[in-house]
Amino acid sequence: MYAPQGVKLSPKMPVPDTMRAWVLGEPGELKLVEKPVPVPKRAEVLVRIDAVAICATDLEVIAHGPPAKVQGGLPFNKNWTPGHEYMGTVAALGPGVDEYAIGERVTVEIHAGCRQCKRCRQGMYTSCLNYGLNYGDVDKGHRANGFTTDGGFGEYAINNINTLVHVPDDMSDEEATLVVTAGTAMYGLTELGGLVAGESIVVTGPGPIGLLGVAVAKALGAEPVILTGTRDNRLQIGRELGADHVINVRRQDAVEAVQRIMNGRGVDYVLECAGAPNAIDEAARMVNRGGKICLAAFPHEPVPIDVAALVTNNIYLYGIRGEGKSATHRAAAFMAQKRFDATKIHTHTFGLDDLPTALRYARDRVDDAIKVVVKRRTEAVQQAAAE
Amino acid sequence: MYAPQGVKLSPKMPVPDTMRAWVLGEPGELKLVEKPVPVPKRAEVLVRIDAVAICATDLEVIAHGPPAKVQGGLPFNKNWTPGHEYMGTVAALGPGVDEYAIGERVTVEIHAGCRQCKRCRQGMYTSCLNYGLNYGDVDKGHRANGFTTDGGFGEYAINNINTLVHVPDDMSDEEATLVVTAGTAMYGLTELGGLVAGESIVVTGPGPIGLLGVAVAKALGAEPVILTGTRDNRLQIGRELGADHVINVRRQDAVEAVQRIMNGRGVDYVLECAGAPNAIDEAARMVNRGGKICLAAFPHEPVPIDVAALVTNNIYLYGIRGEGKSATHRAAAFMAQKRFDATKIHTHTFGLDDLPTALRYARDRVDDAIKVVVKRRTEAVQQAAAE
Amino acid sequence: MYAPQGVKLSPKMPVPDTMRAWVLGEPGELKLVEKPVPVPKRAEVLVRIDAVAICATDLEVIAHGPPAKVQGGLPFNKNWTPGHEYMGTVAALGPGVDEYAIGERVTVEIHAGCRQCKRCRQGMYTSCLNYGLNYGDVDKGHRANGFTTDGGFGEYAINNINTLVHVPDDMSDEEATLVVTAGTAMYGLTELGGLVAGESIVVTGPGPIGLLGVAVAKALGAEPVILTGTRDNRLQIGRELGADHVINVRRQDAVEAVQRIMNGRGVDYVLECAGAPNAIDEAARMVNRGGKICLAAFPHEPVPIDVAALVTNNIYLYGIRGEGKSATHRAAAFMAQKRFDATKIHTHTFGLDDLPTALRYARDRVDDAIKVVVKRRTEAVQQAAAE
Amino acid sequence: MYAPQGVKLSPKMPVPDTMRAWVLGEPGELKLVEKPVPVPKRAEVLVRIDAVAICATDLEVIAHGPPAKVQGGLPFNKNWTPGHEYMGTVAALGPGVDEYAIGERVTVEIHAGCRQCKRCRQGMYTSCLNYGLNYGDVDKGHRANGFTTDGGFGEYAINNINTLVHVPDDMSDEEATLVVTAGTAMYGLTELGGLVAGESIVVTGPGPIGLLGVAVAKALGAEPVILTGTRDNRLQIGRELGADHVINVRRQDAVEAVQRIMNGRGVDYVLECAGAPNAIDEAARMVNRGGKICLAAFPHEPVPIDVAALVTNNIYLYGIRGEGKSATHRAAAFMAQKRFDATKIHTHTFGLDDLPTALRYARDRVDDAIKVVVKRRTEAVQQAAAE
Repeated sequence: MYAPQGVKLSPKMPVPDTMRAWVLGEPGELKLVEKPVPVPKRAEVLVRIDAVAICATDLEVIAHGPPAKVQGGLPFNKNWTPGHEYMGTVAALGPGVDEYAIGERVTVEIHAGCRQCKRCRQGMYTSCLNYGLNYGDVDKGHRANGFTTDGGFGEYAINNINTLVHVPDDMSDEEATLVVTAGTAMYGLTELGGLVAGESIVVTGPGPIGLLGVAVAKALGAEPVILTGTRDNRLQIGRELGADHVINVRRQDAVEAVQRIMNGRGVDYVLECAGAPNAIDEAARMVNRGGKICLAAFPHEPVPIDVAALVTNNIYLYGIRGEGKSATHRAAAFMAQKRFDATKIHTHTFGLDDLPTALRYARDRVDDAIKVVVKRRTEAVQQAAAE
Repeated sequence: MYAPQGVKLSPKMPVPDTMRAWVLGEPGELKLVEKPVPVPKRAEVLVRIDAVAICATDLEVIAHGPPAKVQGGLPFNKNWTPGHEYMGTVAALGPGVDEYAIGERVTVEIHAGCRQCKRCRQGMYTSCLNYGLNYGDVDKGHRANGFTTDGGFGEYAINNINTLVHVPDDMSDEEATLVVTAGTAMYGLTELGGLVAGESIVVTGPGPIGLLGVAVAKALGAEPVILTGTRDNRLQIGRELGADHVINVRRQDAVEAVQRIMNGRGVDYVLECAGAPNAIDEAARMVNRGGKICLAAFPHEPVPIDVAALVTNNIYLYGIRGEGKSATHRAAAFMAQKRFDATKIHTHTFGLDDLPTALRYARDRVDDAIKVVVKRRTEAVQQAAAE
Repeated sequence: MYAPQGVKLSPKMPVPDTMRAWVLGEPGELKLVEKPVPVPKRAEVLVRIDAVAICATDLEVIAHGPPAKVQGGLPFNKNWTPGHEYMGTVAALGPGVDEYAIGERVTVEIHAGCRQCKRCRQGMYTSCLNYGLNYGDVDKGHRANGFTTDGGFGEYAINNINTLVHVPDDMSDEEATLVVTAGTAMYGLTELGGLVAGESIVVTGPGPIGLLGVAVAKALGAEPVILTGTRDNRLQIGRELGADHVINVRRQDAVEAVQRIMNGRGVDYVLECAGAPNAIDEAARMVNRGGKICLAAFPHEPVPIDVAALVTNNIYLYGIRGEGKSATHRAAAFMAQKRFDATKIHTHTFGLDDLPTALRYARDRVDDAIKVVVKRRTEAVQQAAAE
Repeated sequence: MYAPQGVKLSPKMPVPDTMRAWVLGEPGELKLVEKPVPVPKRAEVLVRIDAVAICATDLEVIAHGPPAKVQGGLPFNKNWTPGHEYMGTVAALGPGVDEYAIGERVTVEIHAGCRQCKRCRQGMYTSCLNYGLNYGDVDKGHRANGFTTDGGFGEYAINNINTLVHVPDDMSDEEATLVVTAGTAMYGLTELGGLVAGESIVVTGPGPIGLLGVAVAKALGAEPVILTGTRDNRLQIGRELGADHVINVRRQDAVEAVQRIMNGRGVDYVLECAGAPNAIDEAARMVNRGGKICLAAFPHEPVPIDVAALVTNNIYLYGIRGEGKSATHRAAAFMAQKRFDATKIHTHTFGLDDLPTALRYARDRVDDAIKVVVKRRTEAVQQAAAE
């Protein structure tokens, strides 16, 4: 029976010695295996994973390895468990932890950082300078669950308490998996200045981050919120989440449409979630002088950019990869307060055994899939299917 | 005799009714004319111009019009006086002005802004949303002397007191013309975070802004300061201004050389003053995760950029065009305190009548020209030539 | 007929040559007089005042003079019109103004600043270094309507376009007068960091700023929002505006009650609107280490403060007097979006002729008065009374 | 022989099993004992202490316990080693550490924080919410060496690598002990805005933090730097460290003298290091509107404060207790670059055995003592004495 020394357990929530988890083999190869339940250390808890959402980055990680192109690049690691948008129930406490209780429902953010480099020391833990250094001779203790350390495509995971967010009783497991996505949008809006009420924003690309970007911007009081995209059904969901205007770029020139809405004055912010080759140039023509562009997506190949437009108009541009600066807590607060209904982007649910099918739905957008969630308990899944 | 109503004058500094000034005709065409001395209004002073430096942007303005690509672009204006890096002596005070005294030596920054748009109201006056709107039915009172309103290639100019900086007695006219260049570098470093002491920086491109960028970074305590460029004589001046390391990119790969100096950890900041096609991609490979790149130069054509590197490494990138946020005052303070010798970049002096020759020296880098200064008084010029 | 040169008028909104306005004589003495309608200059408009709310500061200004204790103090001015929380309809445009249209409903913020001092240049126009210098030899053009320049207790006023906020059609005149109060609370919360969602706050003192402080904090996602005060009816309004907890300090120790709610961890922010002698010491014991206290009220006499508690706990404390940093725009955006119902604090309405009665209601809290509004049109007032 | 598992040692720097260290007994009671050399864990190193400076806070800690008045207060701990301003040589590396090398000279900052609370996660590690929780059932791993965990009045100490700063070869041991004092001043100036060049500052109180505050402000380009105090010899040292003006408050009214220097315009910043009862009120009358006051000292009893002056003038006030936001690194960079000579405040040196005498010199200012340093090696001390 699982009873590691120094770890606090509760009889109401027994933990097995081993668990099922998907592990990565060669690029693209996932296997469901039985492996030991990990042990939380100081400042860590063991989370029983109840639900995990699939993100486009999971597909990349499974195919190509971790997403951060640090100096020299990260190696493609094998024999670990991806999955980073998960939630669950606290099952055991590492030494000294009393911030969370066994049985408490929590959702997670990805990055714990190393907590000892300059960036972590500044509060910029997603830009940890020891990114991926969590093994071997250069073990700096960096953790980014599902990117460089074991994540959520299994039954249990270890989380630093820094990465946890409390889930209220009236929030479903599925909704709770979306907190980190909303947190990523919130981080982008925070870096964009944070004083958003009454300011104008364009969100480009109605993927999960873009759609929740619309919702978060609206909750912060942005006005107008303009969403651009290519598919009307996605744009319609954007409207339901708070977009004042939607622009189908298949039918209209995006820059012209935005400038028509704004009477030629441009918007204050662009949250770029499309990753299209012309996205930055178009964004630069949408924002006003001194405006800000947050890049939450990117094309995989270098693209031509009109740098002169950025410089002569004093434009601020920055990339974010995931959440940061505890934005998940702010996003979770809005969701707990029912400021928007994130579940509008949840479309499909599968059981843990069906992860490969779930990944296929997410990758190929089968049946218009947006967010596909994988749940631990089969009954829950069937229940969801019956609804 | 010049004695406009409400304007304060001093007998010790009589002002003529008319003055000589160069005015722009067709693109590229400058004529020396006699025109009325302008009249300062509330919050404005009349400056007798004693010296004006030539900037690459002057060459652009003369050839193509004002530099800010605002929505729709600015028209090419005629019949006005370019020149924006000038200094001089206060010759008359508009109504209510007591911040400066007649006879006081001052240098200038370019942008007064309109003081009524959202950006000016935020303190971002160089990003004025009414940029260039200073005439006709849409007159918002925007001023950017030498860009959109009359500048320094003449004997007198009007300046809003916001744009003035006091010049101490022991600073030469020539040195004072360089304050706005140092102020541009200081603004870039301010926007880059402002907490520079002990942090590492690469300055790319040893033009005037780059060289004074080295000097300002060093004065702020940056360490190391690394300068890259193609010409050894310029790099040598960079060393004299405080560069700890210089890299001639004709002989070494800049990224490799920087990473060798930094032991592969990257630098905190890049101040990009080269405008080369590959400058942003190289900068992105020089900075560490969460690092910052300030663009003070740009290629004139769109260039391919690896956006993925910016996003996955959480890089902040922004363009500046000129000074801002009162950075000229901070730069002037360092210069008054003799923290660095900006005159190292001053190479040539001409009289006002010889402006065309001065422009040619600056454009063609005749005789290794860096900063070419034009002075009002011929004797001063001859004196300078004799030294 | 009113037709000043260079001013744009509309036949649909004729402006008389003279107007009725209350003017201040000796301290405490207000007289209703007929005086010329003022003329807007560049960047200014003429506003026909439709409604004006009474603030405690009005009572101070009428009794003692302008509120800013600048170096040496401001003199008690006579023969001008107080009143600063007003709204109305644009009646004429100064030269070059196209940001607002004649007939457009607007509400105002107080401070235009001088737009030429260091603080105005930084965007801190409420901290203008030329505060009150708008007359005589030292006229710097500073404007703070109702404090140092003519305000809203009359039929017309001049406003710099910087100080205007658009009012949507479905917002009543009375509600629009409350934007500047909400804007003051918003400014406090902005200076407190601005990243409020999910963070905890105590608002002390359920006056108008405190009650709208509760509303704004809740709109920003603060949680919990705790309100302290002495009167249950006021606390009840606080609940309706979003307070999660209210504490009647007559019945409970405020610090103990807050710490019980927070499990001894303290809150992140205190917005101090009570001005009680022990308010700062109590606030310091309510916030956590590194927490922030915004002072929007103050005792009139020096009070003993435990400075050691501020220093050893790294507490940030700052005073605000009124709105700032364009926070009225952000507050107005929330109100336009119906995030909270500011009219809950509007209790009484009078006609312009009845200003003395209105002031008495506000000062003596007659009939539990909170916000007393004075309206230009008698019929509107009667209508309001009939509701 | 000292050889703990997982710890990296070097033959060139053997470590004994036990060491001499002063430990605290009852309040005020220090005993020199032999105790085991501690063992570094992950992200920690063992530092051989070569020199330690005495700070007024040491005297407080020895007499009354740790300085942070956290909720409920910290208990007076016994059987631990105070001393927080130390430097030394890295003697052993915990698992995974390669940021520092054995034999490298380092100086320290005090606070490692817990690295898991909200404030640490924000980069505000000196405001750690788990301050002092480093033992028993609530062990959160907080470390503040010399305050709540073992410090520098002994031969060896454990330091998190976050708390280390490299010491260059040409900096003496004595000077290196002063980095944390300069870092405290630098932190105050950082929190005061960080854009200091050309701005004006008053430093009140020429103690060690005040004197190095003068030096750091000058290095950042502040102008003028004004120092106030009661003793001419201290003020003279302030002049040598960069004060443009000194005011002996025994002979002049400090506020009047400052306003005379500033022509009545006030200064931008006050760094308050005197802790006098009237210090805040005077500071409020020295700064301009919107100005900032950093409190680095405090009176031990509550003092009357004119809160109205803070509120109506929009003044920012905040307390700091020690260094923060990695300001020690910035201060160390200035010291390595020889921007100022911190050793001017070093007056006396004793051997470790003479700690009680050293403390007495510091407490009673024997022989005009400012900074008293205790060194490990007797020969070094004798050498110093001979100089």
